[in-house]
Amino acid sequence: MRFVDLIRKKRDGLALSAPEIQFIVDAVTHSTAPDYQLSALLMAIYLNGMNAEERGALTAKMTRSGDVLDLSHLPEGKVDKHSTGGVGDKVSLCLAPAVAACGVRVPMVSGRGLGHTGGTLDKLESIPGLVTRISTERFLSILADCGFVMAGQSGDIAPADKALYALRDVTATVESLPLIASSIMSKKLAEGIGGLVLDVKVGSGAFMKTLDDARELAQALVETGAAVHVETTAFLTDMDQPLGLAIGNANEMAEAIEVLQGGGPADLVEITELLGGEMCRLGGVCDSLEEGIQRIRTTLNDGTALARLRRMIELQDGDVSVCDDLARLPQPAVTGEVLAPATGFIQRFDTAQLGHIIIGLGGGRNTAEDTVDPSVGINLKKKRGAQVQAGEPIATIGAANQESLDTACRAFLEAIHFGAEAPTELPLVHEVITS
Amino acid sequence: MRFVDLIRKKRDGLALSAPEIQFIVDAVTHSTAPDYQLSALLMAIYLNGMNAEERGALTAKMTRSGDVLDLSHLPEGKVDKHSTGGVGDKVSLCLAPAVAACGVRVPMVSGRGLGHTGGTLDKLESIPGLVTRISTERFLSILADCGFVMAGQSGDIAPADKALYALRDVTATVESLPLIASSIMSKKLAEGIGGLVLDVKVGSGAFMKTLDDARELAQALVETGAAVHVETTAFLTDMDQPLGLAIGNANEMAEAIEVLQGGGPADLVEITELLGGEMCRLGGVCDSLEEGIQRIRTTLNDGTALARLRRMIELQDGDVSVCDDLARLPQPAVTGEVLAPATGFIQRFDTAQLGHIIIGLGGGRNTAEDTVDPSVGINLKKKRGAQVQAGEPIATIGAANQESLDTACRAFLEAIHFGAEAPTELPLVHEVITS
Repeated sequence: MRFVDLIRKKRDGLALSAPEIQFIVDAVTHSTAPDYQLSALLMAIYLNGMNAEERGALTAKMTRSGDVLDLSHLPEGKVDKHSTGGVGDKVSLCLAPAVAACGVRVPMVSGRGLGHTGGTLDKLESIPGLVTRISTERFLSILADCGFVMAGQSGDIAPADKALYALRDVTATVESLPLIASSIMSKKLAEGIGGLVLDVKVGSGAFMKTLDDARELAQALVETGAAVHVETTAFLTDMDQPLGLAIGNANEMAEAIEVLQGGGPADLVEITELLGGEMCRLGGVCDSLEEGIQRIRTTLNDGTALARLRRMIELQDGDVSVCDDLARLPQPAVTGEVLAPATGFIQRFDTAQLGHIIIGLGGGRNTAEDTVDPSVGINLKKKRGAQVQAGEPIATIGAANQESLDTACRAFLEAIHFGAEAPTELPLVHEVITS
Repeated sequence: MRFVDLIRKKRDGLALSAPEIQFIVDAVTHSTAPDYQLSALLMAIYLNGMNAEERGALTAKMTRSGDVLDLSHLPEGKVDKHSTGGVGDKVSLCLAPAVAACGVRVPMVSGRGLGHTGGTLDKLESIPGLVTRISTERFLSILADCGFVMAGQSGDIAPADKALYALRDVTATVESLPLIASSIMSKKLAEGIGGLVLDVKVGSGAFMKTLDDARELAQALVETGAAVHVETTAFLTDMDQPLGLAIGNANEMAEAIEVLQGGGPADLVEITELLGGEMCRLGGVCDSLEEGIQRIRTTLNDGTALARLRRMIELQDGDVSVCDDLARLPQPAVTGEVLAPATGFIQRFDTAQLGHIIIGLGGGRNTAEDTVDPSVGINLKKKRGAQVQAGEPIATIGAANQESLDTACRAFLEAIHFGAEAPTELPLVHEVITS
């Protein structure tokens, strides 16, 4: 097999066979093909696409290019959730302990924030002492003990995906559906899961700005899951405004704990129950989504979900007392209130812009090397559709110093838009896509 | 300007501006962009194309990436011909001296054979002593003396094209119209010409197998010529069988001399007159193609074209006596006749296959490093449509030894197809395309 012939085949719009995709993934993994051939192939894939079988083969081969967790010793269903990323998206932090409390194992390998979207690991690490860089052995032992685990990638997970991504980044081939789908799915499959729930965010704070784009990605992901025999459900959910009220790290962790205490903002609770309910169904502990939602709701209200989080924090060396006293989470040096500049309705947020304000405050990353200040963030008091009076507080911002606080307050007012009429209401959940 | 942004632009089907194309050509010439970015761009160009302005800009910038001949001291018109390559295509050898005899300068930078198609330089070098590797100074002095010159590339001609071509070869992006067109045109423009005639071959012995493909290429070339203000005419001519009767090197040189002696096969004479006539028109020595054809015909019949060849051979250190005695050209060690296996009509040739037989005999190249035996070749006695009797000689093959002769004879019979009915006649010239 010659690499140039595979480029030609994809260039001409033909489908690559599984052995051909294996050849490509091997070449990527072992660096046996020059980058210039890979990048020509990537552009051909970008422009000519890949069908469901190709995406399935690419995903399966990329998964097997590195370590794959073997969870066969755990008899329970193993299910994870992946979000395409948004602002204020702390769903994983509420969801994983709740689903674990329902008897489904959640081996959650998470990422850090980059660009305007936050990352689960950064939020989690706002808990004093808590470690997320752990060995595969410890990962498995925590999962066995408390039913879920949230940690960074350990071992050599999908190295082919890593190599491809680096090349895609510099050759304008990142935004390719088959490549995005196989990249996401190959990493998730390396967790050894049997089911996956996807939260595909749509709107001004998401990578997918329109419902059409989000639907296309969701379908590609769900089809890819089906091709590799992992039952996958995608929810298209609103990211035209932040989820919940907190945007940052420690404040998002606090909000997640509130949900596990039976409180928290309604939209965050609803998404937690919905996605968690579906994870319960996929994990085989109930027969319907409705039943799953009910089970999740129970664990949030009866303290069993919070108990799971407490145990996980303990196992990951964190300060368990944060679960009882949110003030033990890092607090910002200075805080200030943003007041409504006029009377009217909040029409919309430039949600990605809110994410950039967090970066400006030091709570996010422009590059993977940046460090994160967990204490800073925005706490909204009002969301889209709220009627406000001029001078009324609409948000509290926490910062490391007065200067960055002032900058953030000014930027916040530019990212929020008021009007005389109430805006059209947007659904929190747009669509559900299953195979 | 960032290279990745230009990749993205072309990926999205947008046209690149002249400064952007300059940036790309500079990056190629000075190796300031990594190959993996170039190859992603090449695939995007392959799949999304380039409009006439982009092709013109790419051609002009690639031409200026290296040395360009300055022929401004020669007051006559400067015109060249380029063929897309075929089997038995010795047109340049007849044409250049004939056009020079009409008063148009022909600064012909030629190539060597590769794959199934022969090369003008290889044919020319079958003349004992003749050199084609000459300095730019000598090239100009020969051109000034006898009105034409045929030599290999000297100096640093279109280095950007060379670098791009090497990458296209290994990334399946060779067969891209804008890239082919700008590659051909940039090298020809470096000759400092004011007009160009293109012989775009169509059929089983050509790179373009169908009239549609050939027309598309011809149009791209003619448009590109127009974009850089070089008047260009393309003829789509038949390559479904070899041109003339000789296929090889010395035997093709001999056939070309026969044409310059007023003889030679009718198809070769017709193409020489037609293309040469148009070169005369583009070179400004006559007003119409018909007049040009008449002028070329005269130089072929009155010996003035042959006199020009004689002078060129002399100036390039060759043995002039070949013009009077074709037997002084290299002769094969063994020859054999191929006899018709059955009675009937010659339906068609697998023309590219005939080119591969020449390679097998040692008269062509599989790789650019191969050396060529000028003495071997095929001399057809019959062409498409001829009615033959079983046992009648249809070709003579010359070889270096009996074994390769036998192999060639067997292969020849596989590349020729007989039938009971006369085949439909194909025109020698399919179309003429001008801007």
